Amino acid sequence: MRVTILGGNGFLGRKLAARLARDGALGGRRIEQLTLFDLVEPAPLPQAPFPVRRIAGDVADPAAVAGAIPPGTDVVFHLAAVVSAQAEADYDLGLRVNLHGTLAVLQACRALGTRPRVVFTSSVASFSGGQDAVVPDEGRQLPTNSYGAQKAIGELLLQDASRRGFLDAVNIRLPTVMVRPGRPNKAASSFVSAIIREPLLGLTTECPVSEAFAVWICSPRSAVEWFLHAATMDTAPLKLDRGINPPGRSATVARMLNALESVAGPEARARVRFVPDPEVYAIVEGWPAAFEADRARLLGFPEQEPLEDLVRAFIAEDLETTRRERGL
Amino acid sequence: MRVTILGGNGFLGRKLAARLARDGALGGRRIEQLTLFDLVEPAPLPQAPFPVRRIAGDVADPAAVAGAIPPGTDVVFHLAAVVSAQAEADYDLGLRVNLHGTLAVLQACRALGTRPRVVFTSSVASFSGGQDAVVPDEGRQLPTNSYGAQKAIGELLLQDASRRGFLDAVNIRLPTVMVRPGRPNKAASSFVSAIIREPLLGLTTECPVSEAFAVWICSPRSAVEWFLHAATMDTAPLKLDRGINPPGRSATVARMLNALESVAGPEARARVRFVPDPEVYAIVEGWPAAFEADRARLLGFPEQEPLEDLVRAFIAEDLETTRRERGL
Repeated sequence: MRVTILGGNGFLGRKLAARLARDGALGGRRIEQLTLFDLVEPAPLPQAPFPVRRIAGDVADPAAVAGAIPPGTDVVFHLAAVVSAQAEADYDLGLRVNLHGTLAVLQACRALGTRPRVVFTSSVASFSGGQDAVVPDEGRQLPTNSYGAQKAIGELLLQDASRRGFLDAVNIRLPTVMVRPGRPNKAASSFVSAIIREPLLGLTTECPVSEAFAVWICSPRSAVEWFLHAATMDTAPLKLDRGINPPGRSATVARMLNALESVAGPEARARVRFVPDPEVYAIVEGWPAAFEADRARLLGFPEQEPLEDLVRAFIAEDLETTRRERGL
Repeated sequence: MRVTILGGNGFLGRKLAARLARDGALGGRRIEQLTLFDLVEPAPLPQAPFPVRRIAGDVADPAAVAGAIPPGTDVVFHLAAVVSAQAEADYDLGLRVNLHGTLAVLQACRALGTRPRVVFTSSVASFSGGQDAVVPDEGRQLPTNSYGAQKAIGELLLQDASRRGFLDAVNIRLPTVMVRPGRPNKAASSFVSAIIREPLLGLTTECPVSEAFAVWICSPRSAVEWFLHAATMDTAPLKLDRGINPPGRSATVARMLNALESVAGPEARARVRFVPDPEVYAIVEGWPAAFEADRARLLGFPEQEPLEDLVRAFIAEDLETTRRERGL
């Protein structure tokens, strides 16, 4: 089978590509070709048992996207996006990448005429309700930020395209992913990873919200498992509704720091300082802190592992790379 | 004040323009200029006490839309759309007008820098649930057709633009409007007007659904009243949520025909034949037959008049024009 990852040089795109290279197959079918597409040319995938095309291009450019989704493509992972704080700071850029990019993906898939599976990363940021919310599976998306609005729009487009038979979408409303490697980024939720990652690197970091602040989170491992399940599941039971609230975990900052401390000791925890940031808070305060996620469980999406495992997984898989990349 | 009607040559656009010409003012402020914009040059508005610009253009053309929304524009009524059955038959046309058109409106309003009020006609077709539904004010939009999906997307765009302060939108989810004058059109709900209008013209007509089929309806008069209220209301109580489910009325086909009979006699009713049409049914079956609409009532949107009044209003206001236009 042929697979494309849009956003193939991003953190999750690379994790997913590495997993596909390791498995050599998806849903029991051998992978014959993998296309990695991103704004910069994606890094090589040396261990892959199949040919890998690595393409640099703009996801909002229909011709470039069509080139990344060649005839015979069975599965498209559409992970390319402008993140939350950046989409808030630059409205036109967010619209361009998150809306026009998804339109380009839709039209490229439709042009194939073979109804490819599309796994689209939507976001918890497409919902509101804040700290007190427990979003039901039938919950309404009333976004409090442009990123969330653009993600909800992308879902509507791909859902309607699925109904029409242009493609076969599963829209995963991804929780805040922790622990992200690398550097702090422009996502408003960047602190959720930073308060684990920076202390493990021996660095101090600032937490812009209080210890009691709760976040709906998932691990990179769970995200990849969900992508693989979404790529291979039977979509008939989804009917019209292509949105999935996957079974993440609701965790307070205090609970995250407890996990950090239990794995890496009190000196790690002591590297986190609390410095309120109203701009970050203004974005994340609207995001719901919990979801029911019953439908996703019934549909076979695997459960999120405990927080301590997230910290250990980061240490095992990403700490050394991050240290090297950042010259620490 | 300066007012623009996009879709100013449509049925509701002309009703609204005529009302503005009659009043000469909106929300107590004198109208200094009215721009009517449509795909064909809008008809003259001879009785208007203010200058009227009549512009032919494509709502998906940003430059044309910017020309229709000049500096100093206070209120934009965005009624331009490709209707339901047409958007289902021609996906790209629907996307072009209903999505890219609304994007062009958003950017033109944003470019003014003066946060104009935008009254956008969304639709009952953006919801699902079908005959058994009573949609709550917090109901989720899960459209069963491309028109509804594109309307829900337009709402998300204008809602987010309102939050950002680019404009100040009220998104009215219009029920099926009856009685429409003129000819049957490409809306899947065209029959709802046809079963009243055609018999009053002395013509037989086919009803594609059963007598028990219920529709969430409103009159052209109520629609115009709602537009005027949306244009002048205080939007602060809306907060993030710019969507309004106005207080329409749930009516079965039998109830509509009873109203027809009570106003125009049994011979009028006898001109309606029941001929099931699976294509029409496939679109309209998903539309919810009733809404709670409590929020709209609290916000001052006026109640829908009884069905007999709708039939009488059509006879008084639109029957002769329709007869003349159709050469009957």
